[in-house]
Amino acid sequence: MTEGVFGRDSGHEQVVFCHDAHTGLRAIIAVYSTALGPSLGGTRFHPYATESDALDDVLALSKGMAYKNALAGLDLGGGKAVIIGDPKTLKSEALLRAYGRFVQSLGGRYITACDVGTYVADMDVIARETRFVTGRSRDEGGAGDSSVLTAFGVFQGMRASAEHLWGSPELRGRRVGVAGVGKVGHILVGHLVEAGAEVVVTDVAEEAIDRVRRAHPGVETVPDADALVRADLDIYAPCALGGALDDATVDVLRARIVCGAANNQLAHAGVEKQLDEKGILFAPDYLVNSGGVIQVSDELHGFDFERAKRKAGTIYDTAKAVFALAADEGVPPVTAADRLAERRMAELPRLRSIHTG
Amino acid sequence: MTEGVFGRDSGHEQVVFCHDAHTGLRAIIAVYSTALGPSLGGTRFHPYATESDALDDVLALSKGMAYKNALAGLDLGGGKAVIIGDPKTLKSEALLRAYGRFVQSLGGRYITACDVGTYVADMDVIARETRFVTGRSRDEGGAGDSSVLTAFGVFQGMRASAEHLWGSPELRGRRVGVAGVGKVGHILVGHLVEAGAEVVVTDVAEEAIDRVRRAHPGVETVPDADALVRADLDIYAPCALGGALDDATVDVLRARIVCGAANNQLAHAGVEKQLDEKGILFAPDYLVNSGGVIQVSDELHGFDFERAKRKAGTIYDTAKAVFALAADEGVPPVTAADRLAERRMAELPRLRSIHTG
Repeated sequence: MTEGVFGRDSGHEQVVFCHDAHTGLRAIIAVYSTALGPSLGGTRFHPYATESDALDDVLALSKGMAYKNALAGLDLGGGKAVIIGDPKTLKSEALLRAYGRFVQSLGGRYITACDVGTYVADMDVIARETRFVTGRSRDEGGAGDSSVLTAFGVFQGMRASAEHLWGSPELRGRRVGVAGVGKVGHILVGHLVEAGAEVVVTDVAEEAIDRVRRAHPGVETVPDADALVRADLDIYAPCALGGALDDATVDVLRARIVCGAANNQLAHAGVEKQLDEKGILFAPDYLVNSGGVIQVSDELHGFDFERAKRKAGTIYDTAKAVFALAADEGVPPVTAADRLAERRMAELPRLRSIHTG
Repeated sequence: MTEGVFGRDSGHEQVVFCHDAHTGLRAIIAVYSTALGPSLGGTRFHPYATESDALDDVLALSKGMAYKNALAGLDLGGGKAVIIGDPKTLKSEALLRAYGRFVQSLGGRYITACDVGTYVADMDVIARETRFVTGRSRDEGGAGDSSVLTAFGVFQGMRASAEHLWGSPELRGRRVGVAGVGKVGHILVGHLVEAGAEVVVTDVAEEAIDRVRRAHPGVETVPDADALVRADLDIYAPCALGGALDDATVDVLRARIVCGAANNQLAHAGVEKQLDEKGILFAPDYLVNSGGVIQVSDELHGFDFERAKRKAGTIYDTAKAVFALAADEGVPPVTAADRLAERRMAELPRLRSIHTG
């Protein structure tokens, strides 16, 4: 077990513990880097078993946001926050606003958004105490539900993967398995159906399946994710929990492309190499699911959906650049993605040494 | 051993870990409370053995500042910062300025100042990155050496103690032992000599003794603090390291008043009661040494030495109020001081519920 904040040696710029006894707020805001601009990332509200668990999570998540934002070409650094506790019992207007005041107190170095356990309506409450919040409702000038462009970005990532592997971005006639048809997966299915793909889905929630069937009667279903990975697929899209790609899954996976919305799809380091060796193209998760942060960060400029959608469309180009670099440098695409993100984070801050008067 | 930040249950509002890999900066800024205003307290630069030690220290020091600032009647909350490392080898312009940027990033919730290991010249460097810094040089608009009003405040605390115990604030003919004649103790000796007191001093540094002797030839010296506490004194003034008042010292102490500039004079909880039972009046350390923070905080209004000196003069009145409350409530003066500080921290923020338009 690692101990302390500096002791974890995570490379973070700043970690802020925030406490308000009256509302029971205990939050940790982690700023991995502001090299590219203010750090942006969501607030996770979760009943962590220990403070140490919460700290581990927020450190990993905020570092992930730094890479995601860098690769998405945003002028944003990486940050994330966690609120410790059960949102069902602890969440209140006063707690969210106390949290908002702490976000405000960082003067814009950290900009928040929704994450697991927080919703658009919560961001509207937080926004009453701070202007450094995105993911607000459309009524409040926000970007609303960021699932829309998350799904769109994944779809663009698939098109880029198809072009890289098969010479054409066309998905017509391709057989695509979508594991998890919640908010993002459901919208992704719509794009795929519209593009003429054959879609197979699965979900642990029966009502999610029913909703997809009603909207898209031609979609097939299989009982579970295990059946889906063993199915005859061209593309596999993990859109549920993290860790979808473990050793066992890679062994049986028949798809040639993996491209989905889920975070942290690789169950452990090394899986990306196994995929590579099997000739499976893995579109880096944090690249193809960056449509969400692209959508909410557009709020900082006064939200314009069409502009945000055009920006999310660049995920197609970035994915192609990542695949090209991977081929050039003989590394898996996710390693190439990391390198592109790291280069941007290292190079751009140096530009500030040029005084512009 | 306690673990984590929230796990220490110290009641702090905010604890900020700041890291800059290039300069080696690892700093912890602790904000105990902003109930009375922005938190103010110095930056200690010290080679802590562990991060946990540094955290313990900054939590205790910042809480102490909250009480000190509250009792001093300032519109300031309590905060403190530590920089981990040996200032002799680690301190650099870049590190101090990186630290200054972190202070700036808190938007004024924390205002820094000198402490052990940092000096007026360092504050001038930090001030190039943040306006939330005090203790700068007079040339830079700062309050300069805060020892001046620290000593003046201790002198006022002694006068109040004398009046409480003997019915007159006059120190003429009183025998006062000063342990530690460094920056603050030396100036205090000057006030005492001028007031006609008989002064006995000791210090581990021979040159400090020599300097006092040159300035005030009538001053007596004793070999060490142990000899001083056993000497025939009316007043004992600990002005060196903390923990001067332990069980053994209280046993042999012949003075009727203890009033000095050192921080945390009580070696452990309970010593204040032993002093009380022996009929020794203990002027709370954090009250009588608050002239320093009164001096540097005056910088926030454009430094004016005479105004700051008048404010430091109110330590006399506050000490009398503390002694009166102690007598009323049948508690040692330091307990009365804590209660006054806590009442102010609890009451004044409630005033904000009155909307002023």
